[in-house]
Amino acid sequence: MKTFSIGVDLGGTNLRIAAVTPSGEILEHINLPTRLPAGPHAVLDDMAAAIRQIIDKQTGNLLGIGVGSPGPLELPLGVLHHPPNLPGFDGLNLRTELEHRLGRPVQVDSDANLAAYGESCLGAGQAHAVDSLLMLTLGTGVGCGIILEGRIWHGMQGAAGESGHGPIIPDGPRCPCGARGCLEMYASATSIVRRARELGLDHSAGSGSAAPLTASAIAQLATAGDERALRIFDEVGFALGLSLAHLVNALDLPLYLLGGGVAAAWPLFSPRMFATVREGSYVYRLSMPRDPNVFEPGKTNIAPAQLGGDAGILGAALLPVSQRTTTSA
Amino acid sequence: MKTFSIGVDLGGTNLRIAAVTPSGEILEHINLPTRLPAGPHAVLDDMAAAIRQIIDKQTGNLLGIGVGSPGPLELPLGVLHHPPNLPGFDGLNLRTELEHRLGRPVQVDSDANLAAYGESCLGAGQAHAVDSLLMLTLGTGVGCGIILEGRIWHGMQGAAGESGHGPIIPDGPRCPCGARGCLEMYASATSIVRRARELGLDHSAGSGSAAPLTASAIAQLATAGDERALRIFDEVGFALGLSLAHLVNALDLPLYLLGGGVAAAWPLFSPRMFATVREGSYVYRLSMPRDPNVFEPGKTNIAPAQLGGDAGILGAALLPVSQRTTTSA
Repeated sequence: MKTFSIGVDLGGTNLRIAAVTPSGEILEHINLPTRLPAGPHAVLDDMAAAIRQIIDKQTGNLLGIGVGSPGPLELPLGVLHHPPNLPGFDGLNLRTELEHRLGRPVQVDSDANLAAYGESCLGAGQAHAVDSLLMLTLGTGVGCGIILEGRIWHGMQGAAGESGHGPIIPDGPRCPCGARGCLEMYASATSIVRRARELGLDHSAGSGSAAPLTASAIAQLATAGDERALRIFDEVGFALGLSLAHLVNALDLPLYLLGGGVAAAWPLFSPRMFATVREGSYVYRLSMPRDPNVFEPGKTNIAPAQLGGDAGILGAALLPVSQRTTTSA
Repeated sequence: MKTFSIGVDLGGTNLRIAAVTPSGEILEHINLPTRLPAGPHAVLDDMAAAIRQIIDKQTGNLLGIGVGSPGPLELPLGVLHHPPNLPGFDGLNLRTELEHRLGRPVQVDSDANLAAYGESCLGAGQAHAVDSLLMLTLGTGVGCGIILEGRIWHGMQGAAGESGHGPIIPDGPRCPCGARGCLEMYASATSIVRRARELGLDHSAGSGSAAPLTASAIAQLATAGDERALRIFDEVGFALGLSLAHLVNALDLPLYLLGGGVAAAWPLFSPRMFATVREGSYVYRLSMPRDPNVFEPGKTNIAPAQLGGDAGILGAALLPVSQRTTTSA
């Protein structure tokens, strides 16, 4: 009979619900498709039913319920504002809608913040004994979460850590967010595929012409030596290096993590990334690890995340255990 | 008989020492030239003598001594590392050298952090009742200080808030810091003069050809309608807007302040600055004040600093009153 909390990872494709112990052991999990065409209330009903199912089955003491959602999410209210990956959810108060269904308090936060929080408590942050870190999640988009002294830094309206956006290459391509040359326009899986199409790689990728062009297929081409695919990941590394240079100079943290599917291409993008952050950030040069790929205490470390796809759901489950959802003004 | 602390503002040109009450009243001050050619120990001797003179004269209870210095400054140690504005001071432990001379504890921090802290406690932060803010000081260089929930955010090695540096325009001119297109390469007084020379303005500025070309003379030309001078401040605004877009997206603070001499040219650079941050930061657009020049509670405000040249010395004096110099890892 173990004390547990419930973590929910609400994605545009999958809805995951898990019972997790405070030390990060997943006792039970339910994976469902996110029924977007049925509308937000159907998705909330699915979520509430799965949570109830887990509560009924688990015999331990329930510590609370934490939910991670794609943003933008206004905190601490928990209201979604035009979330691009959850069409139809604009204006929805995720927190109160779920609390109403369950009759229990619920905490919500953004998926990128919770992935960073999961890594902080149970992944790379714990492994390296640092209590401040920043994590970029390179997936369909680019998310970012900032942990300062063990707590998620939310900012005034819960919008802190939107460093996937912002004009890092001011004459670069226009991002749907309005800025030009955002990190997301280079380092997301979506942008890697777009660049491949621009460079004509869609005609040569994969064994058959019917195979969909994906970021991981492009990474395979790069690993095999394809010049255009290598160039794309070099651009990913340049954009990441510029973005990290700004973040290192602003925050001076001991650890910057890269997670999400694209981070698996580390050997392809990291040489240019490290070269760019070395050139662009004198704060990094003040405290570079001897080997950029080996963690060194007291230095500015840039490293792959450690928890893979579970970072977000673990962070969500930890939210009611140790983190109060607050904003700062 | 008033309780007081001592604030020291160590600059490359002037050394200022003041007795300040916790509410910010300057009871007494001593201004000296910084005798750089005589070496760091002569400067420290001058500083210690002036501090002792004030302590002997003031009858109130001394709360402590705070010193602001140009960086880079390793904290909490207080060691200077190749400070460009204090030649000869590399490797000097400012804190222990001064403590040794005075036989009392001393706290040190960077001038940009202390200007932000002064504004936070006694200037714009207090006026608008916000406890988190970021301040860019646009002077000879561009300094930056970050206050989070009432405390200076130092980062791991005291190097946080170096946002005057970093590749905001990646193909821009090379900065002495190593990066290309730093904010400091556009928005410092030094860079404004450099740009004016590049554009041939040095031959037309001022009434006589012997008058030195200064940022404020160039601002006067711009105010009078000179096209090249106007273009320079438009570039200042663009660079500030790009930098603020990154900072707003990362930190989501209620207040970003611009101080230092160049900030007086607000009417010249702010239109392009606001246009650029509006385009580049969707977090800003989520929470824009109705009038960008009027503070609005709960919104993302970008405003001129309020304490003028005293922000740094007031922040230094407040350091021993309410701020512990710590770093975070």
